[in-house]
Amino acid sequence: MPVFEPPYYAAVFTSVRTPGDNGYGVTADRMSELVREIPGFLGEDFAASESGLRITVAYFRHEEGLREWAGNGEHREAQRRGRAEWYESYSLHVAKVERSHGFERGE
Amino acid sequence: MPVFEPPYYAAVFTSVRTPGDNGYGVTADRMSELVREIPGFLGEDFAASESGLRITVAYFRHEEGLREWAGNGEHREAQRRGRAEWYESYSLHVAKVERSHGFERGE
Repeated sequence: MPVFEPPYYAAVFTSVRTPGDNGYGVTADRMSELVREIPGFLGEDFAASESGLRITVAYFRHEEGLREWAGNGEHREAQRRGRAEWYESYSLHVAKVERSHGFERGE
Repeated sequence: MPVFEPPYYAAVFTSVRTPGDNGYGVTADRMSELVREIPGFLGEDFAASESGLRITVAYFRHEEGLREWAGNGEHREAQRRGRAEWYESYSLHVAKVERSHGFERGE
């Protein structure tokens, strides 16, 4: 649950999966590994409700990092399989973070 | 899982709760109701993992709506109780959405 010095970029990806794994898990693990190699990658948050809605937020220092991630070959192949097999629906919101703050109990 | 015509604003709120309800549920329901009255409110997404990480993304057409929500009296009292009782930690990222797209299977 990181906070960074603005400005930075956030990619908010919300999704509902199709039933079954169909190779999703292995690819998702690989994508988590791969995104860490993108210059400017800052971190990510992920939550998934039992109801089925999943939210991933990936943070990047610069828009270039985000564009590099969007265009990465392995990632593009994963996106293609996502539309073909893994997702019932999804939304992507690419946003520039202008303000942020964090709270930790006891700080 | 809405997508809107950019530009619009997104408030990404990630949190970990303290144990127990302590009045949180009633207030959370009231906040969900209240935010719908804010001019420019577009919608929200919410997911919570069993591991404890919760992510809420609220979408607003204009920054003014987001500022009105941030400054709303009932909401400010809820924020105060959140820091006093309900949250172990949280992060808020306020961002301007520059690009977005959605996917629905079978479309």
